[in-house]
Amino acid sequence: MKFYEIRDPIFGFITINEWEREIIDHWAFQRLRRIKQLAWTDMVYPGATHSRFEHSLGVMHIATQMFDAIVHKNAEFLKSEMNFTDAGFQRDRVLVRLASLLHDVGHAPFSHSGEEVMPKNPATDKPYKHEAYSEATIRYLMKDVIENHPLNQNYHIKADDVADFLAGKPSVQRSLLWRGLITSQLDADRADYLLRDSHHIGVEYGKYDLKRLLVTLTVAYDENGEPVLAVEEGGWHAAEGLILARYMMFTQVYFQHTRRAYDYHIARVMHHLLKESQPCTDSQRGKFPAPTSAENVKLYLQWNDWLVYGLIHSGQGGPDAEIIRKRRHHRSIYQTSEVPTVEELNLLEEISDELGEIVCFVDEAESSWYKFGREDISILPEENKGRNRKTNQLSAISSVVKGLNPIKQRRIYVPLERKKEAEDKLKKYLGGV
Amino acid sequence: MKFYEIRDPIFGFITINEWEREIIDHWAFQRLRRIKQLAWTDMVYPGATHSRFEHSLGVMHIATQMFDAIVHKNAEFLKSEMNFTDAGFQRDRVLVRLASLLHDVGHAPFSHSGEEVMPKNPATDKPYKHEAYSEATIRYLMKDVIENHPLNQNYHIKADDVADFLAGKPSVQRSLLWRGLITSQLDADRADYLLRDSHHIGVEYGKYDLKRLLVTLTVAYDENGEPVLAVEEGGWHAAEGLILARYMMFTQVYFQHTRRAYDYHIARVMHHLLKESQPCTDSQRGKFPAPTSAENVKLYLQWNDWLVYGLIHSGQGGPDAEIIRKRRHHRSIYQTSEVPTVEELNLLEEISDELGEIVCFVDEAESSWYKFGREDISILPEENKGRNRKTNQLSAISSVVKGLNPIKQRRIYVPLERKKEAEDKLKKYLGGV
Amino acid sequence: MKFYEIRDPIFGFITINEWEREIIDHWAFQRLRRIKQLAWTDMVYPGATHSRFEHSLGVMHIATQMFDAIVHKNAEFLKSEMNFTDAGFQRDRVLVRLASLLHDVGHAPFSHSGEEVMPKNPATDKPYKHEAYSEATIRYLMKDVIENHPLNQNYHIKADDVADFLAGKPSVQRSLLWRGLITSQLDADRADYLLRDSHHIGVEYGKYDLKRLLVTLTVAYDENGEPVLAVEEGGWHAAEGLILARYMMFTQVYFQHTRRAYDYHIARVMHHLLKESQPCTDSQRGKFPAPTSAENVKLYLQWNDWLVYGLIHSGQGGPDAEIIRKRRHHRSIYQTSEVPTVEELNLLEEISDELGEIVCFVDEAESSWYKFGREDISILPEENKGRNRKTNQLSAISSVVKGLNPIKQRRIYVPLERKKEAEDKLKKYLGGV
Amino acid sequence: MKFYEIRDPIFGFITINEWEREIIDHWAFQRLRRIKQLAWTDMVYPGATHSRFEHSLGVMHIATQMFDAIVHKNAEFLKSEMNFTDAGFQRDRVLVRLASLLHDVGHAPFSHSGEEVMPKNPATDKPYKHEAYSEATIRYLMKDVIENHPLNQNYHIKADDVADFLAGKPSVQRSLLWRGLITSQLDADRADYLLRDSHHIGVEYGKYDLKRLLVTLTVAYDENGEPVLAVEEGGWHAAEGLILARYMMFTQVYFQHTRRAYDYHIARVMHHLLKESQPCTDSQRGKFPAPTSAENVKLYLQWNDWLVYGLIHSGQGGPDAEIIRKRRHHRSIYQTSEVPTVEELNLLEEISDELGEIVCFVDEAESSWYKFGREDISILPEENKGRNRKTNQLSAISSVVKGLNPIKQRRIYVPLERKKEAEDKLKKYLGGV
Repeated sequence: MKFYEIRDPIFGFITINEWEREIIDHWAFQRLRRIKQLAWTDMVYPGATHSRFEHSLGVMHIATQMFDAIVHKNAEFLKSEMNFTDAGFQRDRVLVRLASLLHDVGHAPFSHSGEEVMPKNPATDKPYKHEAYSEATIRYLMKDVIENHPLNQNYHIKADDVADFLAGKPSVQRSLLWRGLITSQLDADRADYLLRDSHHIGVEYGKYDLKRLLVTLTVAYDENGEPVLAVEEGGWHAAEGLILARYMMFTQVYFQHTRRAYDYHIARVMHHLLKESQPCTDSQRGKFPAPTSAENVKLYLQWNDWLVYGLIHSGQGGPDAEIIRKRRHHRSIYQTSEVPTVEELNLLEEISDELGEIVCFVDEAESSWYKFGREDISILPEENKGRNRKTNQLSAISSVVKGLNPIKQRRIYVPLERKKEAEDKLKKYLGGV
Repeated sequence: MKFYEIRDPIFGFITINEWEREIIDHWAFQRLRRIKQLAWTDMVYPGATHSRFEHSLGVMHIATQMFDAIVHKNAEFLKSEMNFTDAGFQRDRVLVRLASLLHDVGHAPFSHSGEEVMPKNPATDKPYKHEAYSEATIRYLMKDVIENHPLNQNYHIKADDVADFLAGKPSVQRSLLWRGLITSQLDADRADYLLRDSHHIGVEYGKYDLKRLLVTLTVAYDENGEPVLAVEEGGWHAAEGLILARYMMFTQVYFQHTRRAYDYHIARVMHHLLKESQPCTDSQRGKFPAPTSAENVKLYLQWNDWLVYGLIHSGQGGPDAEIIRKRRHHRSIYQTSEVPTVEELNLLEEISDELGEIVCFVDEAESSWYKFGREDISILPEENKGRNRKTNQLSAISSVVKGLNPIKQRRIYVPLERKKEAEDKLKKYLGGV
Repeated sequence: MKFYEIRDPIFGFITINEWEREIIDHWAFQRLRRIKQLAWTDMVYPGATHSRFEHSLGVMHIATQMFDAIVHKNAEFLKSEMNFTDAGFQRDRVLVRLASLLHDVGHAPFSHSGEEVMPKNPATDKPYKHEAYSEATIRYLMKDVIENHPLNQNYHIKADDVADFLAGKPSVQRSLLWRGLITSQLDADRADYLLRDSHHIGVEYGKYDLKRLLVTLTVAYDENGEPVLAVEEGGWHAAEGLILARYMMFTQVYFQHTRRAYDYHIARVMHHLLKESQPCTDSQRGKFPAPTSAENVKLYLQWNDWLVYGLIHSGQGGPDAEIIRKRRHHRSIYQTSEVPTVEELNLLEEISDELGEIVCFVDEAESSWYKFGREDISILPEENKGRNRKTNQLSAISSVVKGLNPIKQRRIYVPLERKKEAEDKLKKYLGGV
Repeated sequence: MKFYEIRDPIFGFITINEWEREIIDHWAFQRLRRIKQLAWTDMVYPGATHSRFEHSLGVMHIATQMFDAIVHKNAEFLKSEMNFTDAGFQRDRVLVRLASLLHDVGHAPFSHSGEEVMPKNPATDKPYKHEAYSEATIRYLMKDVIENHPLNQNYHIKADDVADFLAGKPSVQRSLLWRGLITSQLDADRADYLLRDSHHIGVEYGKYDLKRLLVTLTVAYDENGEPVLAVEEGGWHAAEGLILARYMMFTQVYFQHTRRAYDYHIARVMHHLLKESQPCTDSQRGKFPAPTSAENVKLYLQWNDWLVYGLIHSGQGGPDAEIIRKRRHHRSIYQTSEVPTVEELNLLEEISDELGEIVCFVDEAESSWYKFGREDISILPEENKGRNRKTNQLSAISSVVKGLNPIKQRRIYVPLERKKEAEDKLKKYLGGV
C-alpha cells in the first residue's frame, strides 16, 4: 500500500493512502478548495483565507488520532464488552476516517451564509442544512470512488454506511459509538477548526490542550448504561479549555460585527444569483436545489466561492455584490451586550423603531457555549475507571462551563451612506432617554 | 490622529493611521485581497491561500521596524554626516511606509506566472515587470489619495516621490539611502514573505532570526565611501540565516514540480483569456496592456485571481483551464539535479529529443541565492564601528553564502494521459544508456 | 547611552541601558539566577527549571510595554488632567522599570515554600512576605547602585522611591497611578509568568492575548472619580482570557499534587537548616532573619536554591531532605474536588481521623481567581471614551469571571512506605460509607 | 501494562511504561535532573537552565519515532533481507529506547567542561569520555533495574546489551543497524538538543524540519553493500537543514565567548574540588575516578551541578569559583574569525606574545560541521528505491554541506581587572602593525 504525505500547518504531515487519495481527488472533494473556511472573515482578519479542503484533511487526521488513542487504551474493554475484534477496530477506523474526511463535502459557498438560501425540506418544514448535502453527495456521487477501490475489499464499506454514520442512523449499529468523534461538543471538527482558524488569523484564542485531551479520551458508560465517549477525570480541565477556546473564538472572531455584515450581504448575493439563474416558475426560486437527487446535488455543487467571486466581479451579483466589491458594507451603529437583559432588548427595539427605514437589518448573533442533558460531556471519575465506568457530567464539575451564558447579541445595521444620519438620530434619542 | 490595529499572524498587530487607511481602502489596493501570494501553491501545500494584501501590510510593518531600528541607533551619525533633522527622519519614515505598502500594488494575478503575459517595453525590448505596474498605479491612480490627505501637509509627499523611490530614481535624492529596505538581499519584502509563507504552509524552512537582524541593522560606508545599509558584525550569521532560509524555501516550496506545472498552465490560461478579450488587430494580443497610461493601468487592474477563477470555472479559459479545473496538470517525468552538470543537461536534452512530441514543455527553475558585487550584503566590523564605518562583504566572510550554487534545475513535463507511455519510453531509453 | 540586548524566549530581546545593567549585575539581583521560578515543579514537569532572574527581566519588559502603550494613547489626557509633562512621563517610566525589575529581588529560595519560614512581623503579628524583603533589599543594599549612576541625574530617583512605589506608599504621589502595572489582577508579573511558565513547561494553558491587551490598556476614572488603569471595552475578553489562563495554570500546574508535596518537604528542610544554623536562644529559631536591617537582609540573601541543593545533597537537610533526594515524597491518597461541598469536607475530616497518625499532612490548595470590589478590573465602555471616562467592572460584564469559584481543594498525604496500608484502610472505610 | 505520560515542551507528551519508569526512577538517572544541559550558558542566555534529564527523555522519544518510521516503511525489506520477525522488531525497539534513554547517564557535571577532568584511559592514553561513564553506569549499577523487570521476560535484554549497543560492539550483532539513531550526523541526540536548546533559549537557529526527516528516513545499502540508515532523496534538504541548524547553534550559542570563559573557569573549579577531596598520593589527583569499577562509578556519580553549586557558594571552590560567583569571568579581548587564515593565526600568536602574562588563556573553539567518508549521510535516490537501494552521499549532492568550513576560532582571554590595560596594549600594538 502506498502512502502520501500532505503538509499541514497544524499537524505537520497528514498521511493518506491510495484509496483516500482517490476520494480526495474526486471533483466533489476538490471543490472544497474553492470554499473558504471562514467566508469573508478575511475582510477583518486578513490571514483568514484558508479553505474547507485544508480543514477537512485536518478533521480526518485528528479524528483518527482520537480513535487510535481510545482503542489503544480500551482495546480489552471494547473486545470484552462490545465484541470488537482487531478487524472490527480496523473497519471502524476506516469508517471514521472517511466520514470525517467527507463531513463537509456538501458545504455551501461562503460557509454558513450559504445556508440562508437552502430550500425547505418538506418533511421537516425547515431549510436543509449543509449536512444533508454532504450525505447526498456521498450517496449519489461518491458511491463508486468509495466502494470500488481494491483496498475496500478488506472492509466492504458502502457509501451509504458513511452517510448513515454521519446522519447517526441506526443502520451502522455498533459503529455509532464513534459518532461523537464527528459530532459532539468535543468532536474532531471543532478540535480542528479552533486551532486552524487561530493559526491563520494569528490569535491565541482557539488554542487548547489537544495533547492532554488525546491522552485522556476514553470509553465509558453513561447514566443509562449505554457506552459513550468520555474524558478521564484527569482531563476535565482540558475539555473545559476547549469549550472556553470556542467561546473566545466566537466572541472575538466569528461574531465580529463587520464579519456579520458580510454574511448578510453575501446571503443576499447568493439569493440574487440563484434567482437570476432559475425560472420564474420555480416555487423555491432563489434557493439552492434540494439534495434529493444526483442531478440536484450536481447542480448545487456547481456553486463555490470562485464562481461567486467571478460573478460579483463581473457585476452580476446585484446591489449587495456592489456593496461587497466596494467594501461599503452596512455598519453596525448600535448593539446590545453579548448577554442582553430584557431592558437592553427593549431599548434596542425602540431605537430600531425610531430609526425606522434607515435600519437595513437587525442581526442576532446567537450561540450557546455548552449543551446540557444528553450532549453534556461525560467525565469518567478516577475511582470508577477500574470498575463500573460510570461517568459524571462536565457541567456538574465545572463551574466555568455551567456559568457560560449563551450569547444573544443584537446589532442594528445601517447603510454606510446613512451612517452619519443614523448616529445623529441615535445620539438625540439616547440623549432624551 | 486616529490609529487602527489590524491583526496579523506574523507580527501580532499592524498599526496604521487614517491616511494609510484611506490608501489601503483604495480599490487598487483592495484588489490585492484577490491575488494569492503564492498563486497555485495551495494545490500542493493546502495552507498556502494567503493574499498579497496580507503580505503588503506585513512589508510595511517590517520596513518600518527596520527604519526605526536604524534611526534609533544612528541618529547622531545621520544628523552629522547626512544632514538629517528630526523632521527629515519623519518624512523619510512616511516615504518608506508608503513605498513598502504599495510595492506590490501593480502585481499581476497569480503572482509571477502573470508576468509571462506582460507586453514588451519598447525602450528595453524586454517585457515589463510588475514593478512597472506598481509605479504606474501609484502615479496615475493613487495621486489623489496619497497627496491630498490632511496628514500629508506635514510632509508634502508626492505620488511621484513614492514611485520614484521604488524605481530608485535620483529625484528622491538622499532618501535613496532607504531603498535597500524595499529592494535588496535583506529587504522587507523577503523578510516578510519567508516568515509568512512558512507560517501558512506549516514549514520551518523560511524562519530566520528577524529580531537579531533588527538589532544589528545599521548605516555605514561602502568601499566607495557611499552611505549604505549594513549589518553589524554581530549579526552576520543572522544575515546568512536569511539567505539560507530563502534557499530552503525555494528548493522546498517555490520550485516544487507540481507548483511549476500550475505556473505553466495558468500563464497559458491568462494568455488565452487576454487574447479572447482583445481585438485581432492588437499587435500585442494575448498580453496585458502596457503601463503607459491611466486607462491602460485601469484595464490591467481589472485582472485578478477572482475574475480568472470565475472564468476558469465557467469554461472560458481554454484547454489549460480545463486541465487546472480537473487537476490533470502535466507531470514531470524526468529532472536534472538542482545544480546540473553539463552531462546531466545533455542527457536531458537527449531524453527530450527521444520523447519528441510527448514533451509538453521543459521547465527551467532558476535562481541564484546570493548576488555578489554591488548587491553583496555589507557587514560592519566591530572595530570599524567607532571610526571609519568601512564595511566588508558578507560573501567574503561566509563560506556558506559563497558556496551556494545557483539552481538551474530542468524538468521534462508530459500530459497526464501520456505519462505511462513517456515513462516506458524513458525506461527503455535509460536502460540502453 | 549604550544599550544591551538580552535574548528572551518570550519576548525575543530585552533591551537594557548601562544603569540597568549595573543594577542587574548587583549581587543581590544576580542571586535570582539561583532561585527557580517554580521551585520543584520540574519534578513533575521536567521543563520547569527556569529562574526568577529570567522572569524579573520579563516583568520589566512587559511593564514597560504596558506603560508605553498607555502613555502613547493617553498623553493628552494625562497632561491635561494630571499635569504630566514629557519629563514626568520619562521619570515615571524609569520608576516603573526599576520597580518591576526589582519586585522579586527579595524572594525566598524555592519560591513560595520559602515563605513558610518567614519570621513574624511584630507590627502585624503575621509572617513577613517576600515583598517586605524586596523592599528592604532595595532600601538597604541597592541604594548606591540605584542612586549614583550618571543617568540618574536626569531623574533623581531614590532607592526609597522604588521601594515605596512597590509598597504603594503615598510618598510617591501621582506615580501610584502606575502601581497596577506591578500589582493588580492584570499586572506585568502574571502577564509574564503565565506565558513564561507555559513556554518552558510546554503547555498552552497560560497563553492569552497579550497583544490585544496592550492595545486596549488605558487610563480612566473609577466610580469615585479617581484615575485608574483600565481596559477599553474592546479588550474585555482579552482581560477575561488572562484570568482564565491563570485559573488553568493553577489547576493544571501550580496545584498539582506532587508539586504540593515537594512544597511541604522543602519548607521543612528550610526550617531544619535554619534551626541548625541558629543559636538555641534565638526566639524565632528556624525562621529567616527579619527584613529590618541591612545585616539581616544580607544574611537572608545568603539563602538560595543552590546552597540548599548542596546541603540536601551532602546530607545536612534533615529527614525531609532525604525524602527529596530519593524522590520518596509523601503521596496524596485522598482529595476533595477543587471546589468542595461541606459534605466533601466533612468526609475528608472523617477519613483523616480514621487514618490517624498515618496522615502526614492535610494540604489545602487555595486560590481565588478573581477579586471583586476595589480590585475588580475596570472596563472603559466605548461610549464613555470620549467624555467622562467612567468605567464598569469586569465582573459585571463577564459571566465567566463572575462564575469562577475559588479553589479550596484538600488532600490527605501519607508517607510512601505506608501508602498501601493507608489505601487499604481507606477502601475499607469508604466501602462502609 | 501501565503507561505514564510526561509533559514535554518539544514533543507534547512522552509516554513511558512501568519498566522504563523504574529505570528513570533509579538514582543514577535521577541525577541527570541535577546536570544542566548547557552548563553555564544561562549566564548569557537566561533561558538555558534545562537539564539532561529532560533531554534524555526527549532523545528516547525521538529515537523511537525514527525507529518506528523506518520499520513502518521497510518492514518487508527488513524481513526479507535481514531476517527480522515482528518479535525482532519489538526487541530492537526496546533496545533502542533503553540505549537512547541512558546514553547520557554517565555525563559529567557542567556538560563538556566536566570532561576536562577525566582521567586517562591507560589503554588509549587519552582521557575517558562521558560515554565510557554511561556504559560503566549501565553495566555496574543498572543491571538489576534493567534485567529483572517482568516486562523484560519478553526480550531478555541484558544491561551489557545496552552498553554494548552504545559502544558499537559487535556482540549486539544485527541490532547495530540502529546505532546510527544514537550516534551519527542525524542522530536522535542532536535531533533533540537542537530543538530543545532553541526552545528554552528563545532562538530559531536550531529548528529544522523534523517531520520531513521522519517521513524520509529509511534503510538502504552503502557502497560496500552493507545495510545503513539513510534518507530518501526527497528528504535531502531536510538533512541539510539539520546540519545547518547545528552550524548556526554552534556559532550563535555554544561557542559564544562568555560561555567559553565559564567553561574554562568551571573546569578549573572541578579540578580544584577534586584535588581537595583526594589524597596527595593519588597519581591522577584532580581527576575523576576512572570508570573501571562499580565503586569508582558510584564515586563519580556523586558529582553533579548541585553539589558543585553548593561548594562554590560556600567558598570551597578555589579562585575560579570566586570568579564565577561574582561574575568576574575572564574577558575575550581579541579573536580571529571563525575560519582563520594563517595570517590571522600568526597575528593572534604575536598579540598573545606581546600581552605576555596578562593572557590567562587562549581558547580554541573547534568544530567541524560535517564529517565525510564513512560518516557521510547516505541519500537513497528515487530511482534506486525500488531496486538495489544503493545510496549516494549527502556531501556529493549538497554544495552547502560541502562548503561548510570547520570552525577553529581562537580567542585571547584576560582577567577582568586587567582588561583595560590589555586593551591599551592591544590598541598600541595593532596601531603599529
